[in-house]
Amino acid sequence: MTEVARTPLTPLAFLERSADVFAHRTAVVHGEERWTHRDLARHVVRLARALRASGVAPGDRVAYLCPNHAVMVAAHFAVPLAGGVLVAVNTRLAPDEVAYVCTHSGARLLVADAELAPTVAPVLDRLGVEEVVWVDDVVGRPDLPGPAYAELLDRAGADPGPPPRFAVEDEDAVISINYTSGTTGRPKGVMYTHRGAYLNALGEVITAGLDHESAYLWTLPMFHCNGWCYPWAVVAAGGAQVVLRAFRPPEAWRLIGRERVTHLCGAPTVLQGLLADAPAGPLDHPLTVLTAAAPPNPGAIAAMEALGARILHVYGLTETYGPHTVCVLQPEWRDLEPAERARRIARQGVAMVMADPIRVVDPQMRDVPRDGQTVGEVVMRGNNVMKGYWRDPAATAEAFRGGWFHSGDLGVWFADGAIELRDRAKDVVISGGENISTIEVEQAILAHPAVLEVAVVGVPSDRWGERPKAFVVPRPGASVEPEALRAHVRGRLAAFKCPDVFMVVQALPKTSTGKVQKHVLRAPEWAGRERRIN
Amino acid sequence: MTEVARTPLTPLAFLERSADVFAHRTAVVHGEERWTHRDLARHVVRLARALRASGVAPGDRVAYLCPNHAVMVAAHFAVPLAGGVLVAVNTRLAPDEVAYVCTHSGARLLVADAELAPTVAPVLDRLGVEEVVWVDDVVGRPDLPGPAYAELLDRAGADPGPPPRFAVEDEDAVISINYTSGTTGRPKGVMYTHRGAYLNALGEVITAGLDHESAYLWTLPMFHCNGWCYPWAVVAAGGAQVVLRAFRPPEAWRLIGRERVTHLCGAPTVLQGLLADAPAGPLDHPLTVLTAAAPPNPGAIAAMEALGARILHVYGLTETYGPHTVCVLQPEWRDLEPAERARRIARQGVAMVMADPIRVVDPQMRDVPRDGQTVGEVVMRGNNVMKGYWRDPAATAEAFRGGWFHSGDLGVWFADGAIELRDRAKDVVISGGENISTIEVEQAILAHPAVLEVAVVGVPSDRWGERPKAFVVPRPGASVEPEALRAHVRGRLAAFKCPDVFMVVQALPKTSTGKVQKHVLRAPEWAGRERRIN
Repeated sequence: MTEVARTPLTPLAFLERSADVFAHRTAVVHGEERWTHRDLARHVVRLARALRASGVAPGDRVAYLCPNHAVMVAAHFAVPLAGGVLVAVNTRLAPDEVAYVCTHSGARLLVADAELAPTVAPVLDRLGVEEVVWVDDVVGRPDLPGPAYAELLDRAGADPGPPPRFAVEDEDAVISINYTSGTTGRPKGVMYTHRGAYLNALGEVITAGLDHESAYLWTLPMFHCNGWCYPWAVVAAGGAQVVLRAFRPPEAWRLIGRERVTHLCGAPTVLQGLLADAPAGPLDHPLTVLTAAAPPNPGAIAAMEALGARILHVYGLTETYGPHTVCVLQPEWRDLEPAERARRIARQGVAMVMADPIRVVDPQMRDVPRDGQTVGEVVMRGNNVMKGYWRDPAATAEAFRGGWFHSGDLGVWFADGAIELRDRAKDVVISGGENISTIEVEQAILAHPAVLEVAVVGVPSDRWGERPKAFVVPRPGASVEPEALRAHVRGRLAAFKCPDVFMVVQALPKTSTGKVQKHVLRAPEWAGRERRIN
Repeated sequence: MTEVARTPLTPLAFLERSADVFAHRTAVVHGEERWTHRDLARHVVRLARALRASGVAPGDRVAYLCPNHAVMVAAHFAVPLAGGVLVAVNTRLAPDEVAYVCTHSGARLLVADAELAPTVAPVLDRLGVEEVVWVDDVVGRPDLPGPAYAELLDRAGADPGPPPRFAVEDEDAVISINYTSGTTGRPKGVMYTHRGAYLNALGEVITAGLDHESAYLWTLPMFHCNGWCYPWAVVAAGGAQVVLRAFRPPEAWRLIGRERVTHLCGAPTVLQGLLADAPAGPLDHPLTVLTAAAPPNPGAIAAMEALGARILHVYGLTETYGPHTVCVLQPEWRDLEPAERARRIARQGVAMVMADPIRVVDPQMRDVPRDGQTVGEVVMRGNNVMKGYWRDPAATAEAFRGGWFHSGDLGVWFADGAIELRDRAKDVVISGGENISTIEVEQAILAHPAVLEVAVVGVPSDRWGERPKAFVVPRPGASVEPEALRAHVRGRLAAFKCPDVFMVVQALPKTSTGKVQKHVLRAPEWAGRERRIN
């Protein structure tokens, strides 16, 4: 086939188009600053040239450690436009963890918000990057080496190359790497491709109903699965992205009103935060709230609908570019009793339109019956499953065994193809939408000299969905204080990963072969609940 | 990359999903018959098995000669599901033309509506197909050989193969061939791929705003560019397709009301037909009308908007899967005077979101200035440009010269990337949305013994946009009667291709090298108009 009829898929094409078609419409709102799509494209081209002038070569990784910010939107286009691979780092990580992500990804540059200087400073000599660029518009320049963002941009003029093209040679090339906590201790780098990002972005446009009059509020962190691909999707639609540096409900509501926000995404904590501070009357414009990480509860659905908002429940993992399924709102549900409607909306739903059908399988990879009762593992494949784990073929092979991506989530399957989660096979706790590897937390605790054994499990939390809880067996003769353990863990891991409760026990329940029976520890914590995840 | 992360794109996947997710929602309305998405999928699987049992092997062509009908929706999925290639034939063609399409495509089967028996009968022994299957539910079985459609379906049980999979190995494989009149005499077979059909269908979902509460009315023939990919797009969205066998405004309005139709597509003749018979008051539900082949006039826009409908102006060719551009409705246009708004909406617009940017170029393939004045040729490329012409590498190379598809349409380019057509370089007249090759018509006229020379040009028509007009030079000593020429042409070509006017002239205007100057003939016909196409 000639090239005339086949252009490699890449989300870069969306910005090239919107820079023309929506040249004078708002693309990014950041505080009092407003960028049109043309402004965004100009910034992106300038940044791409600056990255090239800074030595970023095709395939090089460029790490960002920033809260939601206009430069993060720009990074989603500029880094791949320069031929690079974006590594957006979780801003809540501890210094050691940031150093791990930078060195494991082999990032050439780190662009960090000056607010995160306290995270960067302790590991500055262990990042492995050539330089740290400081985004200093909000908190000012830190007393650390490295140019300011404006200085980076100024290098654009030194780029000897041709104007960057909003196109790629290979649609299967990697566009970004997102680090996630899995079942093993260290975070793994999930690779997204240009093709996957393109199709997933179009899927989000269709699923959420984005168009050029949409305004999307950034309540979800952009470092989280590339913000579920919304930096690309909203540009594809020609809509506006309203940046919110940190989620504070009053500011979110102010922006929802001022910018006539039509869409936002967030974990249940975001939903609850919004509802706790909701306006008295209904909104004067449509609002769609996409929520994930836990089913929305009946009260939240009713309260949001009373405001005139629509809730879409979606589900996915970092390995699936964010959302993979959507609980499609069937028109006939409008007539159901609120409790029954909420029960339907609690389902994680069906694969989105551009994804392959999702399956629930038994350990032999056979479909479980679609009876809404038989529990199996949820597995996915297709164009919005990751390319693999960066520099970790063994973990990739394990995740892809049997030709499907294994989510580690256990659920049931309904006749219409919808799934509903029930439990988790992987040792992961999901707190406020963030994955926490229980094994990683256990290893941190075990590093304390007084600890003999430990098991960490997820327990339900009204605010965060789940929180880790640690069961600790002291060494013979030693005594352990929960406060000492807390300080110990906080020195090693991001604060949100530190268990809320350290319970000292004499022994852990074990199988005859000596394996810790975590389900025995979890049972009393989840007593009276239908599911063992939240 | 492992297959886990990369599924070949095919619109077949849409039906597999909707059969589950929208199992109980209406997919097809045909008279009093209603098929759910599950019914459609079952029919499609049965038909695919029946086609395999009839000897259809991977890559085989299956031709359809049918008005809009539920079986045509099914054919768009069942033929590729059986591994075949769909050839949907224009029902207005003359018998010789149908025979040409069947033999040129090498179709193994022809599925024909019994209503078209008069077209098929004269060439039954020249179709080159193994059998003709008769769709006989409306006008009854003709007295011609070949099984009825129900008999074809009954062969499904004889299919020894495994259940067909809603998937393909190669996304660049051909899914359909659509014959179009080009600049040369005989129709050419435009090849669509699974990938192109998939992306174009998603593009239509986004452009038209289709979802699972949409109802699409078939005022456009499904044999026309595979109905602009809507048979696939509406299934992707989970919406309903309301079949209209022949466009009659009162029936169209009755269905718009009864089925709460939200979308329809059509040439200006459809728009005018609807408006001539429009209801007195506004509609009680939203309606989007996508129109192409000529810009909607200010009166039609105003009248449609008074009904509460929204007009989207799109443009494309058979070679671009139907629509390639859309005149994006910019929100600020709402405040413009009606005449100025109509002027904006008259633009053919910008490439759709999944297409590469469209260009307007000079003969050396350089961009013309984006000044809205300089005329150049409109060229396209990307995932919604055809794979090429079936068994015609020379025509493909000519159409793709310089690495772009040459539309043969002349237009101007605006700063926002939008194009507006002005004239046509190709010898094509577009009448009621159908292409007519002037060369094909000239050759038919030249076959008359009394004709020495002829030139056919397009002239404006309020009803059809354009109509062909013939300028005929008789042989010395011979006399030609327009009525005789008309009868002569009608015996050879589809009725719509026959010129309305045969003007007998003594000579044709020519260049010094003897080439007919068609623009001299066209000039007086288009006097006082801004464009020379309609």
